[in-house]
Amino acid sequence: MIDERPARPGSSVEARIVAVEDGAMTPRFDRLATEEPLEIRVRAGGASRTVAITMRTPGNDFELAAGFLYNEGVIDGIEAVRGISYCLDGSVDRDQQYNIVNVDLAASVLPALDALERHFTMSSACGVCGRAQLQSLELRGLAPLGDEARIESATVTALPARLRAAQGIFEKTGGLHAAGIFTLTGELVVLREDVGRHNALDKAIGWALLQKRLPLDACALLVSGRSSYEIVQKALVARIPIVCSVSAPSSLAVDVARRFGLTLVGFLRGERFNVYAGEARIRGR
Amino acid sequence: MIDERPARPGSSVEARIVAVEDGAMTPRFDRLATEEPLEIRVRAGGASRTVAITMRTPGNDFELAAGFLYNEGVIDGIEAVRGISYCLDGSVDRDQQYNIVNVDLAASVLPALDALERHFTMSSACGVCGRAQLQSLELRGLAPLGDEARIESATVTALPARLRAAQGIFEKTGGLHAAGIFTLTGELVVLREDVGRHNALDKAIGWALLQKRLPLDACALLVSGRSSYEIVQKALVARIPIVCSVSAPSSLAVDVARRFGLTLVGFLRGERFNVYAGEARIRGR
Repeated sequence: MIDERPARPGSSVEARIVAVEDGAMTPRFDRLATEEPLEIRVRAGGASRTVAITMRTPGNDFELAAGFLYNEGVIDGIEAVRGISYCLDGSVDRDQQYNIVNVDLAASVLPALDALERHFTMSSACGVCGRAQLQSLELRGLAPLGDEARIESATVTALPARLRAAQGIFEKTGGLHAAGIFTLTGELVVLREDVGRHNALDKAIGWALLQKRLPLDACALLVSGRSSYEIVQKALVARIPIVCSVSAPSSLAVDVARRFGLTLVGFLRGERFNVYAGEARIRGR
Repeated sequence: MIDERPARPGSSVEARIVAVEDGAMTPRFDRLATEEPLEIRVRAGGASRTVAITMRTPGNDFELAAGFLYNEGVIDGIEAVRGISYCLDGSVDRDQQYNIVNVDLAASVLPALDALERHFTMSSACGVCGRAQLQSLELRGLAPLGDEARIESATVTALPARLRAAQGIFEKTGGLHAAGIFTLTGELVVLREDVGRHNALDKAIGWALLQKRLPLDACALLVSGRSSYEIVQKALVARIPIVCSVSAPSSLAVDVARRFGLTLVGFLRGERFNVYAGEARIRGR
């Protein structure tokens, strides 16, 4: 019998394209970053529930699922997870088997998922503003970060080149966001990539969760895109005290960083950067 | 009596930051792009329902709400909308009144919102893979685009400079994504900005909807970020035949473009670009 198990989708695919330069059109081949949906399900006590469907680049899917559930507060540690698996049963179309991840929880019943449901709710609770977002983090019991961590400004400026050097896939497709977690002396701990910025960070934090490396309180994070509220919120949950990006932060990202004592660096380019919060952790000259 | 109506949040705010250069730290002021949640509600027949909460940059909120509902298939034209308003009633905290938009529908009952709920569903329907995403677009009755539109390659390469020239806010904060809709000869029709890529495009298409300028079948779109599945899907719904970005498209963006006859341009930099689908619309030399 032929093995009918599906091929796992790769992180990039080859495509025939047309390169145009000064109006001259030349066919050639190029590599594209794969984008496919991933459905994350939690299971407990015989019940199953879909908690998210996210467009992602295949690869490190278990880390993505674990990191997502941790960052959203569905699980509070690796002890809450009994196992993680793809949905390979025969009732699922072969195309889709590697696009569904089941996370089996140690609990005997499914957790309340009210926080997740705020994104899609039947109610008309008037709970949307930046202040309410801040309060929801406080209500989750997140304490301000300790202020022990320190980093040299020269270490900060060295991070982008180290991230780029480690970005193997990025070199091929040019289409992936990256999240790199470094020690405070600038050594790379883990790099993860994805078409989605948030997914890259969920994968990196999910790796740390599965490796029992949390909390990341002696680490710095560099993301390839902008620092939004969600990026800073995820870093805060993983207790990363220093978040850097090569681009601009949003107002709410800065508000969260200041409220919880997180160092937020932006416009990290060459020997220059801006510090939007928590400058006491940066050692200048 | 003092007017107690809340101030509408601005699109940028001033913040005190620390600029670091070669290790020297200098306090200064900078502008940040505002990021605040927006809750989009639909109302019909006395019933009300929240359909989305998105993190966005305040400004053009009615366009964002209208464009989102149109692109997601909740409304099929401006005739379906009776009115759009902020939620200014007294039961809502003052901070939040400008973060809630009510869209009053002409229908006598709320529409089924099953498509939207696919992102957060109680069911265990195994419907996630790129092929299923393509099929869902076909099921919405979206036909392939007509092939009348043509654009000169020199017009394509001129778009990024025109977008940047029009990006007033971008110059101040450096933190906003842009979506620009142009004629096929390269004149800017509308530019919208947001901390979120998808929001910038929803605002631009929402503008066209409110101005009764849909379909945009004689236009080209330039987005500042990458071309993901969602960007191409939104362009397709608005019938924009040519989508350009300065960065890379994903595999699924290319699949959708090819399936529905949309021209997809990426890595648009200087006099060069790549065409990933629909090259027949590009007039080279």
